[in-house]
Amino acid sequence: MIIALKKGIRAEEQAHLLQWLENQGVRTHISEGEFQTIIGLVGDTTRIDMDLIRGLEFVDNVTRISEPFKKANRKFHPEDTVVRVKNCTAAFGGGNFGLIAGPCSVESEAQVETIARAVKASGASVLRGGAFKPRTSPYDFQGLHEEGIRILSEVKKLTGLPIITEIMDISHLPLFEDVDIIQVGARNMQNFELLKELGRTDKPILLKRGLANNIKELLMSAEYIMAGGNEQVILCERGVRTFETYTRNTLDLSAVAVLHELSHLPVVVDPSHATGAARYVKPMALAAAACGADGLMIEVHNDPPHALCDGPQSLTPEQFADVAKAVGKIREAITQ
Amino acid sequence: MIIALKKGIRAEEQAHLLQWLENQGVRTHISEGEFQTIIGLVGDTTRIDMDLIRGLEFVDNVTRISEPFKKANRKFHPEDTVVRVKNCTAAFGGGNFGLIAGPCSVESEAQVETIARAVKASGASVLRGGAFKPRTSPYDFQGLHEEGIRILSEVKKLTGLPIITEIMDISHLPLFEDVDIIQVGARNMQNFELLKELGRTDKPILLKRGLANNIKELLMSAEYIMAGGNEQVILCERGVRTFETYTRNTLDLSAVAVLHELSHLPVVVDPSHATGAARYVKPMALAAAACGADGLMIEVHNDPPHALCDGPQSLTPEQFADVAKAVGKIREAITQ
Amino acid sequence: MIIALKKGIRAEEQAHLLQWLENQGVRTHISEGEFQTIIGLVGDTTRIDMDLIRGLEFVDNVTRISEPFKKANRKFHPEDTVVRVKNCTAAFGGGNFGLIAGPCSVESEAQVETIARAVKASGASVLRGGAFKPRTSPYDFQGLHEEGIRILSEVKKLTGLPIITEIMDISHLPLFEDVDIIQVGARNMQNFELLKELGRTDKPILLKRGLANNIKELLMSAEYIMAGGNEQVILCERGVRTFETYTRNTLDLSAVAVLHELSHLPVVVDPSHATGAARYVKPMALAAAACGADGLMIEVHNDPPHALCDGPQSLTPEQFADVAKAVGKIREAITQ
Amino acid sequence: MIIALKKGIRAEEQAHLLQWLENQGVRTHISEGEFQTIIGLVGDTTRIDMDLIRGLEFVDNVTRISEPFKKANRKFHPEDTVVRVKNCTAAFGGGNFGLIAGPCSVESEAQVETIARAVKASGASVLRGGAFKPRTSPYDFQGLHEEGIRILSEVKKLTGLPIITEIMDISHLPLFEDVDIIQVGARNMQNFELLKELGRTDKPILLKRGLANNIKELLMSAEYIMAGGNEQVILCERGVRTFETYTRNTLDLSAVAVLHELSHLPVVVDPSHATGAARYVKPMALAAAACGADGLMIEVHNDPPHALCDGPQSLTPEQFADVAKAVGKIREAITQ
Repeated sequence: MIIALKKGIRAEEQAHLLQWLENQGVRTHISEGEFQTIIGLVGDTTRIDMDLIRGLEFVDNVTRISEPFKKANRKFHPEDTVVRVKNCTAAFGGGNFGLIAGPCSVESEAQVETIARAVKASGASVLRGGAFKPRTSPYDFQGLHEEGIRILSEVKKLTGLPIITEIMDISHLPLFEDVDIIQVGARNMQNFELLKELGRTDKPILLKRGLANNIKELLMSAEYIMAGGNEQVILCERGVRTFETYTRNTLDLSAVAVLHELSHLPVVVDPSHATGAARYVKPMALAAAACGADGLMIEVHNDPPHALCDGPQSLTPEQFADVAKAVGKIREAITQ
Repeated sequence: MIIALKKGIRAEEQAHLLQWLENQGVRTHISEGEFQTIIGLVGDTTRIDMDLIRGLEFVDNVTRISEPFKKANRKFHPEDTVVRVKNCTAAFGGGNFGLIAGPCSVESEAQVETIARAVKASGASVLRGGAFKPRTSPYDFQGLHEEGIRILSEVKKLTGLPIITEIMDISHLPLFEDVDIIQVGARNMQNFELLKELGRTDKPILLKRGLANNIKELLMSAEYIMAGGNEQVILCERGVRTFETYTRNTLDLSAVAVLHELSHLPVVVDPSHATGAARYVKPMALAAAACGADGLMIEVHNDPPHALCDGPQSLTPEQFADVAKAVGKIREAITQ
Repeated sequence: MIIALKKGIRAEEQAHLLQWLENQGVRTHISEGEFQTIIGLVGDTTRIDMDLIRGLEFVDNVTRISEPFKKANRKFHPEDTVVRVKNCTAAFGGGNFGLIAGPCSVESEAQVETIARAVKASGASVLRGGAFKPRTSPYDFQGLHEEGIRILSEVKKLTGLPIITEIMDISHLPLFEDVDIIQVGARNMQNFELLKELGRTDKPILLKRGLANNIKELLMSAEYIMAGGNEQVILCERGVRTFETYTRNTLDLSAVAVLHELSHLPVVVDPSHATGAARYVKPMALAAAACGADGLMIEVHNDPPHALCDGPQSLTPEQFADVAKAVGKIREAITQ
Repeated sequence: MIIALKKGIRAEEQAHLLQWLENQGVRTHISEGEFQTIIGLVGDTTRIDMDLIRGLEFVDNVTRISEPFKKANRKFHPEDTVVRVKNCTAAFGGGNFGLIAGPCSVESEAQVETIARAVKASGASVLRGGAFKPRTSPYDFQGLHEEGIRILSEVKKLTGLPIITEIMDISHLPLFEDVDIIQVGARNMQNFELLKELGRTDKPILLKRGLANNIKELLMSAEYIMAGGNEQVILCERGVRTFETYTRNTLDLSAVAVLHELSHLPVVVDPSHATGAARYVKPMALAAAACGADGLMIEVHNDPPHALCDGPQSLTPEQFADVAKAVGKIREAITQ
């Protein structure tokens, strides 16, 4: 970390700052320039709060040279992390590609079972389905809650597919006992109390990037979970907010490459939520596979035109089969 | 709501859609154009889920003509709502201007008391102080928690100033019994489970706009609280994320004018968090007062240079006194 | 186009508006709702200025149902446009894939020739090179200007590769006689006077999307060129501004799919400028090919580490050969 | 400027970089840290191209400690610049407040004269009017061009008000002989060839901030003009693009405070274009005055409801008179 001081800082202010920094466990190097004095910090600066220092009247600016995340950082953990789901073959990262598919919302056991059997036949390794739904309007459908999770568990028993579903509040955690991967949605990416609690569980966590959050913030949120002891985090790129309106959000595929460089954690892409339209899912799924994603999360519904909830962005099981096959070809092409 | 259908929609699909819409309790008007068929919805469309419809393959686009919020909507509630704090004179809206001031984080009773007495003397009507702090890094200071709230309550008894502090999780709600106004931070603006729970309390809620959320989303989040029965919501503009880096966020003061037009709820501005720098707080506080804000929320610390936490954006009590006086002059100028 | 009027509009205002609309050559359909009166416009609304209408005091909102672009619109021109470069085999669109490669800035004839021969051998069909460089700072290198174009022309003669280079001002147009494709940079995407002038030329134009412009605006700028008579426009996605800082911009690959749906024009992707880092160029080039781009534009330099200008985002000729080969495999995989 | 090198850089690479830097005229200080080597640059780093260095494979990151603008920089020019219009009293900066008013588009001499006389009576010191209009669609009205400027000149003679109008292309410069202040629109803020040319004129330039440009980029564009010799630049904040849709853009009033800190140039605010709605112009004009703007630029039309072009955001002369009076009161309140 580099701290540039303003011209005219008083000696006692500078001494006070240096003292405080040393107390934080880092060593300081001072270089007096013609126009500016610069303090370099050496040691573990992860725990130094940049905002605190930037706020000081006599500080001109502060730059972090090393990243503020540690457990998620590839520098300290060069090997890819492989996140495996217990008692099944699903795995993400280190060459393992996971295909997560299922309906946006759980509607009924029959619906979920039909979809689960179809996507499993096409190669999906994890079943998704929303039980708790974050909706912008209090008047929109909020999900089946407990009943939704019960249905997913039932279908898991019937099909052998492990299940993933979203958590929206700490108090719901007991309901997730049977859930194999817990999903944190984009709007909760910085619900720090929730992240801390998930850090105390022993289940894989799929952490979605917030709509206006950058890659560093995503990794800092992963760090919250990992700092609690749970290192099985799957990162998920699902589009960010931009000025574009033809797609719901803008899928940031370069994030896949950047995350693989900065972190050892697996990266999954969700083209369904990112684009918000079924017709864009295939091209984006292929693109995600081509740039090295460790998995995909795709919405599939057995009857999108009649399912007024999943319609817009859900594939039919037939379309999913086609996408899964095409993704397979892309993966072959990049690993030849 | 207006639904534009794609050319070539089949008769049965159109009939199915119309049936479904009528079942939602709205009436439909169809107008067949040269290039496009358009369905107009009449009645209470608040509960119609636009995304559901937009997702249908044969729908070209959907436009909401009336706003999706109801209880927060000035159309149905033309008079300004005045949010009053129990057992004291603090009030927001309808000509009442509230001045909230205090430290970013609660550090000690002595600190909070000193600041509280100073800001009260300068005209502050509510004391703020952070007990639970949302931080991007798990390694940054997270607040004093229960002890922080205890200190605030103590100072409330000593000074008579009502208190406001931020809630980060539903499970903490019992700790907030003595708190007069509960604050929902920007990162939790769409923590819908939390909003629902706060809708069941009888305390005023100060709801901060999310960093990348628009005005409609802010009002929809207010609607979540109000739909639960609690209509005492104070909206708070605290800056949005833009490409600007000289300020922490970009204060959107036109939001004050827009919110006053769309909603009857009071609007408070937080120039401290928006700008992230003490030297910009005064000009932004004056600007907020000039464009009609119903209150201000300002960070004040008795010793910013030594308080390594509040430094960057906190005013000294003396600076706060100066700002409060200047704000008073602006309010006189606009109400003359 | 749909115009929703405010409640309480006076009869004469409404009549005046209807008269004005009819004078613009469109027919109007009025539907009086319970809460709102809605005017539907039928006919060619391309020339109706939405902003004018939105500004009227008694108008609540205006929605365009059909797109405001016409010549670029696939609805009126369902077949893919193929943009071909005269006297050579380079072509974009309709199944033709064009590979544009070369240095960011033209430095010397020897440099350009070396790179041109290398990229041609790897499959590039067009040579790029900057002669006029738009730089944020007046103190940064601005390009070789006329001399740069002379060098490109010379190398074109030597290698047979057609050339593309950026124009920054109308007055430079005479210098571009020998240039095969004229590039309009992101910062000039809305330099409307320049676009109009290029509409009067008979050369293919590669139009880059502006850093904060959406897809509709890109197509409206293409429309400016096409309205002048020049329909050979190649659209170029080169990343948009977001809050991400690890990459220079955020490559919006879903724009490829959206542009192919809305327009018949070919779409090229520039992963070099989008990411700003050589190490991200390959994954993004593969992703672009996988989602159906009609070409790529890639920076190549014979000696990136010593070329202090092109270094960051340029590939070596060897790296380019590797990318070109991998792109070929992806294209095979998606067209099998 | 601080350059952080990657671990494992080879000695010869480092030596090569140092040599190159010294050749650019700066001195280098090296500090070898545990994890990283850091190079500090001392001297005039304005001309060092950060992107060049950031692109080098062995560089981890580059930070500018001092600003890359010089002539616009308050550090080197502590006194406020006052931009005065020749042969009249209009002035901006250093305590001078300029009120620019007039129609969006010049329609006729009668129209412009009526408006000019009205706004002059209310205190306007400069008359604005668009002759060349940048429009997103080629089918929208593009202005009266030469005839528009002729009309403005005529009205200038009649009323004595100096005139400001927008330039869209270098080739139009000869038409601007009679124009007192030349405006560069938001879309041309980075039309560098145009800026360079304006740097060779001796007229004040009003430079509008681009829709997605940050403050540093605005100052770099001012630097382009000033580097050419013309130091009479008025900066204009006119809103930036955000995710908000109720207002056309988001007026960034904190930019006024930041620009006043970083630069000695005067800052004018345009609430009409920023908000796009007449009803928000007054609150934003008052806010701009309250935070210290050196002037306002406001659209006024004699008959907004019938002027289908200026309607949405134009004030009537009566409304303008009211705003001007209220602005005067705010200016008194802040200077008491």
